[in-house]
Amino acid sequence: MELHFDQELTQVKDMLLRMSSAAEQAVAQALKALTQRDTELSKQVDFGDTVLDHLEMEIDERVVELIALRQPKARDLRFLIVVMQIAGELERVGDQAVNIARRVEELNREPQLKPLIDIPRMAEIARGMIRDALDSFVYAQPDHARRIIARDTDADQLEAQLNRELVSYMVEDPHTIGRALNLMGISHSLERIADHATNIAEYVVYLYEARDIRHQHEEPPPA
Amino acid sequence: MELHFDQELTQVKDMLLRMSSAAEQAVAQALKALTQRDTELSKQVDFGDTVLDHLEMEIDERVVELIALRQPKARDLRFLIVVMQIAGELERVGDQAVNIARRVEELNREPQLKPLIDIPRMAEIARGMIRDALDSFVYAQPDHARRIIARDTDADQLEAQLNRELVSYMVEDPHTIGRALNLMGISHSLERIADHATNIAEYVVYLYEARDIRHQHEEPPPA
Repeated sequence: MELHFDQELTQVKDMLLRMSSAAEQAVAQALKALTQRDTELSKQVDFGDTVLDHLEMEIDERVVELIALRQPKARDLRFLIVVMQIAGELERVGDQAVNIARRVEELNREPQLKPLIDIPRMAEIARGMIRDALDSFVYAQPDHARRIIARDTDADQLEAQLNRELVSYMVEDPHTIGRALNLMGISHSLERIADHATNIAEYVVYLYEARDIRHQHEEPPPA
Repeated sequence: MELHFDQELTQVKDMLLRMSSAAEQAVAQALKALTQRDTELSKQVDFGDTVLDHLEMEIDERVVELIALRQPKARDLRFLIVVMQIAGELERVGDQAVNIARRVEELNREPQLKPLIDIPRMAEIARGMIRDALDSFVYAQPDHARRIIARDTDADQLEAQLNRELVSYMVEDPHTIGRALNLMGISHSLERIADHATNIAEYVVYLYEARDIRHQHEEPPPA
């Protein structure tokens, strides 16, 4: 059975949605492994990451194939390019979930350093940004995507605050250094996940408004 | 004057080569700012990063335009897609150079913690990988690209070794913690730059062999 081009586009979109739910799940598993000190669960994150790697390669192949066969223009071409770029961002979210899982395994070998408050909050922000960025893609809401970009600052601020707190632990008691470094690594991975969500939101604006808004929210270069 | 399609492809390739030399220069400047304790120089890295951001946006726009106008197939289409992907990697190299520059500025406010040996070596490896990956692209040498991927392990090992050394400084003397964390951040950025070079090399193999070799060198997932 030959598919119509819009059915083919829907298929590609569905593959991307499978990726985004796998990415969200990998982050959720890595965090649950941390908060419940469950090393077995942290190992399952690797499986989710492999699923993401394969879905990304499938999406890239399908996108190149469809561009070659269907020779799309304007919006359809942008759609396919953006799907490929978003898949690349979600694959990197999976990599960060694996980074978190490795650090959780090290942390679970020692007593807990401190009650976890900021990290679960950062994880909630990062996961929410990924989910909302994909929603803004599916429901064609570039305004919604722009609001996601603003939330990246919350993740940055939480990371900075947590780093200051962890440095004070390290200074007071050198025995905490290994654990503090692992917690810093986890909060950095979560901040990177928020960055990937920001990138996805920028692609969504580009898709629906045909405007490239990357780098606009950054500091201007020194004169 | 209307250009032939192969002239247009050469133009796009030249834009990418401008990006790659800007990326290499940004890394070199950030490192020179570190080794020569030159805070003024570290500020110039931001300018290079802005150049990279703009070149990436120009390349993306031009690639989408050429795909829409010329409806390329097979190798030419892969070429354009790969140029866009490599541009994305080089833009991230610029971001890492900026991360290094910010940490150099903090380090330059305090006396030097230790003689810098591993970090300049890591920087040499990372810059060499970027340069060679772009050469393998320009000279159509996928075998050369495969050998670059193997060098990523050297950067990973140097980072791990440096981290162990820096942790021992931190444990012995809490006054070193701030500087040690900045040096760890710099070595992590260099390791990330080596990862971007690896990604570029994988795209080069894909371009010339039409084979996606991403994720092959990774551990298999647990059963």
